[in-house]
Amino acid sequence: MTGKVAVLSAGSWGTAFSMVLADAGNDVTLWARRAEVATAINEERENPDYLPGIQLPPAVGATDDVEKALHGADVVVLATPSQSLRDNLTDWAPYVEPGAVFVSLMKGVELGSLNRMSEVIHQVTGAGPERIAVVSGPNLAKEIARREPAASVVACEDEAVAKLLQDRLHSPAFRPYSSVDVLGCELGGAYKNVVGLAVGMAVGLGFGDNTTASLITRGLAETARLAMKLGANPLTLMGLAGLGDLVATCSSPLSRNRTFGENLGRGLTAEEIYASTRQVAEGAKSCASLRALAEQSGCDAPVATYVDDVVAGRMTAPQMMDAILARGTKSEIG
Amino acid sequence: MTGKVAVLSAGSWGTAFSMVLADAGNDVTLWARRAEVATAINEERENPDYLPGIQLPPAVGATDDVEKALHGADVVVLATPSQSLRDNLTDWAPYVEPGAVFVSLMKGVELGSLNRMSEVIHQVTGAGPERIAVVSGPNLAKEIARREPAASVVACEDEAVAKLLQDRLHSPAFRPYSSVDVLGCELGGAYKNVVGLAVGMAVGLGFGDNTTASLITRGLAETARLAMKLGANPLTLMGLAGLGDLVATCSSPLSRNRTFGENLGRGLTAEEIYASTRQVAEGAKSCASLRALAEQSGCDAPVATYVDDVVAGRMTAPQMMDAILARGTKSEIG
Repeated sequence: MTGKVAVLSAGSWGTAFSMVLADAGNDVTLWARRAEVATAINEERENPDYLPGIQLPPAVGATDDVEKALHGADVVVLATPSQSLRDNLTDWAPYVEPGAVFVSLMKGVELGSLNRMSEVIHQVTGAGPERIAVVSGPNLAKEIARREPAASVVACEDEAVAKLLQDRLHSPAFRPYSSVDVLGCELGGAYKNVVGLAVGMAVGLGFGDNTTASLITRGLAETARLAMKLGANPLTLMGLAGLGDLVATCSSPLSRNRTFGENLGRGLTAEEIYASTRQVAEGAKSCASLRALAEQSGCDAPVATYVDDVVAGRMTAPQMMDAILARGTKSEIG
Repeated sequence: MTGKVAVLSAGSWGTAFSMVLADAGNDVTLWARRAEVATAINEERENPDYLPGIQLPPAVGATDDVEKALHGADVVVLATPSQSLRDNLTDWAPYVEPGAVFVSLMKGVELGSLNRMSEVIHQVTGAGPERIAVVSGPNLAKEIARREPAASVVACEDEAVAKLLQDRLHSPAFRPYSSVDVLGCELGGAYKNVVGLAVGMAVGLGFGDNTTASLITRGLAETARLAMKLGANPLTLMGLAGLGDLVATCSSPLSRNRTFGENLGRGLTAEEIYASTRQVAEGAKSCASLRALAEQSGCDAPVATYVDDVVAGRMTAPQMMDAILARGTKSEIG
């Protein structure tokens, strides 16, 4: 089963995901905010800003007109920065086809409201859970764009919709697994960016693989604790959308969050890093939301707490490492 | 509390661990099979074969006389290759002090018997569970030797003994957590070497971080499945001795198992790799034991099965990757 899919917008993951969709047989329209990006995609078959050197398949077309992108699309893929989804979607909602299914690629938690992206989609569009899905897994955009084999989770509370989307996404290089745990996938996705920042700081400070492996372990335990408290399935966090995504982010020099953390570890401030790069490190925003969510839920969340303190300039990266490494109970479990 | 500890023998992990013990205040005697290694350690304060360039602390002495090493030691640390423990320990047992506690650093499962190392220790020495402990975690020997901060799990079925050992091991750079799950720690330790081989093969074949993260995720799920079936606590596998150790092994170019896998991925046979290196890749032996243990227990174990097939020359590394990537159910959980 195939059809028309709109992908909003044309960052690196949105662009790479439009290739997956095209490879799986869908007709894809990629919306770019800037007309020159849409033109480059249509004429040069390449997104020069975010995936230079990667040739886009013929089934991917681009436009800077959101109404045109959404026209006739029964699947709407959302790939904007998390913190701007609400505003963007409010503008876009009038053009969405009735009954269209939303697929969130976003990995963040809204500041202030502490809403996950599926909650924002519901609030803005009124779509029910059977029209809201999430795709999350170890999917570094540049590797997906090179068609290296990858697996991912597609989650929707309505299992039939999850399975339908699974078919719509399946290509030789991209293997989606279905799930009904939207909450678990979203928390895993948001938290891994924060843990990625912590691991990046450790790398930037010169720590080795023992230390980063310990941070990953404790970060995932922290994620699972909060996710379970909020009602997620703990197995989701042990799967591709939890452990898998976390390990890919923390291993890869391609990861924006890890790179952002490395720069913090080298002593730059968040402002200096923002000033020097165009790309968004979601974890630098979500750390505050996840910290607040954990506090609300009465969960212990040292990684989110300390990362938030470093990003906000209340703590240095070496102080964070000391605080995390010196912490912990004497018995590993409970 | 401190005392005399014997460490048998002086490979890279045994040597690095003797530094941890010395830093924690113990008087350590490191047994080396070859007299020239013992002499180098005593006279040059360095193990030139396994940790060249690392200065050993004064509290570490060495000998090639096992009786002398064991004399007066109330803790006996075992760090031999897993497959030779039974023979070695049979020779050593007469010299072990009555009541001494054994600490296994070994990460393997005996071929043929399918015994874990704690079981071999019990069978050979008659020691009860209160005298048998395991240390396992993300502890790459070279980083430990450089005193980079690391955490680990010390497990003994007798919790009081685990806590006693925790004190005996605690140093500024090495943070042990206590546990009573010996079985979980041992299976996590043995399995991670096998998953490390699989990840190494993927790296050797040129796959990226998305693929290796997926392999790690599926490998840990396979480990947890078998461990739970055999009675371990699943949280152990999500902790430092499971996930933590696995991620460190799979991330590090220092890991012997990952390196062995990389060479398999590049098309060398196991025999060719054995011929070119002195170090043992435990996973190349344990894959057969773990596969058999999983078969006995009725557990699905694709990673152990395929790795065993590649090591035994019944399958090529590219065939293994195809088989693993093509596998899997359509729903991620259950």
